Amino acid sequence: MTEDQQELTHPSIVDGWFREASDEFFPGQAFMIKVEKILYSKKSEFQDILVFKSTNFGNVLVLDGIIQVTERDEFAYQEMITHIPLFSHPNPKKILVIGGGDGGVLREVVKHDCVESATLVEIDDMVIKLSKKYLPNMAKSYDHEKVNVILQDGFKFLKDCGESNLNENKYDVIITDSSDPEGPAEAFFEQDYFKLLYNALNKDGIVISMASENVWLNINNLKKLKNTCETIFPLVKTCYCTIPTYTSGQISLMCCSKDINNDISKPSRKFSKEKESELFKYYNSDIHSASFILPNWAQGILKN
Amino acid sequence: MTEDQQELTHPSIVDGWFREASDEFFPGQAFMIKVEKILYSKKSEFQDILVFKSTNFGNVLVLDGIIQVTERDEFAYQEMITHIPLFSHPNPKKILVIGGGDGGVLREVVKHDCVESATLVEIDDMVIKLSKKYLPNMAKSYDHEKVNVILQDGFKFLKDCGESNLNENKYDVIITDSSDPEGPAEAFFEQDYFKLLYNALNKDGIVISMASENVWLNINNLKKLKNTCETIFPLVKTCYCTIPTYTSGQISLMCCSKDINNDISKPSRKFSKEKESELFKYYNSDIHSASFILPNWAQGILKN
Repeated sequence: MTEDQQELTHPSIVDGWFREASDEFFPGQAFMIKVEKILYSKKSEFQDILVFKSTNFGNVLVLDGIIQVTERDEFAYQEMITHIPLFSHPNPKKILVIGGGDGGVLREVVKHDCVESATLVEIDDMVIKLSKKYLPNMAKSYDHEKVNVILQDGFKFLKDCGESNLNENKYDVIITDSSDPEGPAEAFFEQDYFKLLYNALNKDGIVISMASENVWLNINNLKKLKNTCETIFPLVKTCYCTIPTYTSGQISLMCCSKDINNDISKPSRKFSKEKESELFKYYNSDIHSASFILPNWAQGILKN
Repeated sequence: MTEDQQELTHPSIVDGWFREASDEFFPGQAFMIKVEKILYSKKSEFQDILVFKSTNFGNVLVLDGIIQVTERDEFAYQEMITHIPLFSHPNPKKILVIGGGDGGVLREVVKHDCVESATLVEIDDMVIKLSKKYLPNMAKSYDHEKVNVILQDGFKFLKDCGESNLNENKYDVIITDSSDPEGPAEAFFEQDYFKLLYNALNKDGIVISMASENVWLNINNLKKLKNTCETIFPLVKTCYCTIPTYTSGQISLMCCSKDINNDISKPSRKFSKEKESELFKYYNSDIHSASFILPNWAQGILKN
């Protein structure tokens, strides 16, 4: 089917409002965004894809009924999931992104001059194509000279890296920018996946994963994920960023380090305040550390 | 009218979901909570009051269509608006609460043994009565020996304090726990009010005000409020707490100190970690400081 044949309706949009399909994961609450115009609505080979123009948040990308990004606030998540691990690592040269087809993480990765290559492994080519068309400010780094794109299942790719004996097939930082654990991305939250990540990293490597959950609403899932990571990595910490269009305005990120002495809650490097102001809208070296400080009850459970 | 005569419907509740009436202040987005049972719905002399039992957040108090508290997450706001100023002050003895009829702030204030008196000035007796009935864990300190309740307009009360020459009529910490600026509480966000607060404080006094806004959605209002405060107080800083049932999951608080050398973003006193764990669910001395760290763009505008 060509794009012209698409039917511009979606079951999650009624009377001009998009309602997120999150009842199962976040029962008893609902979030809605007002729609100006539906731009794309179709099932790809892998998932249900919806793109609409909202009245107040710019264009919005929705996968399987869940908001992935809005143009207005995407930078918070993209900056934090990228710069937390990149500034925690003393000298990140080779970066791997699993998922992240919207291109936002790549845009952030190439802001670090020390990075020599940024490889993106995305299973769904349609997400990349739609982002180039409807989220151009996110997808703007696909042509960057340091960027490679591989259309493949992340599991398969990581397995090959881990089995390789060549240093050139290992990474300093791996960023998992997947969709939520409910659905096709479920395996990205299990032990086997973190083993693959561990094996694909250099010896001082760092991993960060979108943890989907938030401390307020499903801390037990977060604790379970942290426990899983701790069976593989010697140092695991949780941080969060605020972002108004994710459920209850925040999302957690899980950070794992192979080097027990590298405290990922403190930046190993930092840019000058001037450079931070120029390059970042959300991240700065103060919020790096502050994002690991959790409310008292959450700290008691997660023991960050 | 007696409570028995109340009609248990409310225009904000349709098909078993409460939808917050926030379109005017937060256009293009909406938040809904699932209702198990409406417990109270009536206009008081001052405002439209709704109390309902939700499926997942316990009982919910709504004033003029805006969520004020839910039993599940109220502690975040109550603890932060209380303990930020009380731990910033070296020796807070006399505390004044303007608004706060639900009693949550009082419950937190009396956790500090150094406090000698906690005076609550609330205009709407009905809020106190309903909280005692439907939010008993919040209203539990009304009978505490250090607590005084005065049913009066906060402006009138502060004016009398300010005009008094007696030290006994001045306060160490004043907490404004009002409803949102749109509506009857509008005056609590204007210069005249902060002048009254200043005059009712001892010389090292601290004020904290519910700022309603959040950095993501209406930072210009927050900046305006900060500028207003800075015409009166020598030191003004903004902090926030995350709370899932407020708009986009967070709320800002404005902190003002009469003493330019008292950095309210750092606690002057702290409890032991054990005592923090026993008494607080959200607050700890680390989150005190972290709550003043803002995203880069917000820091650029608010200059915290």
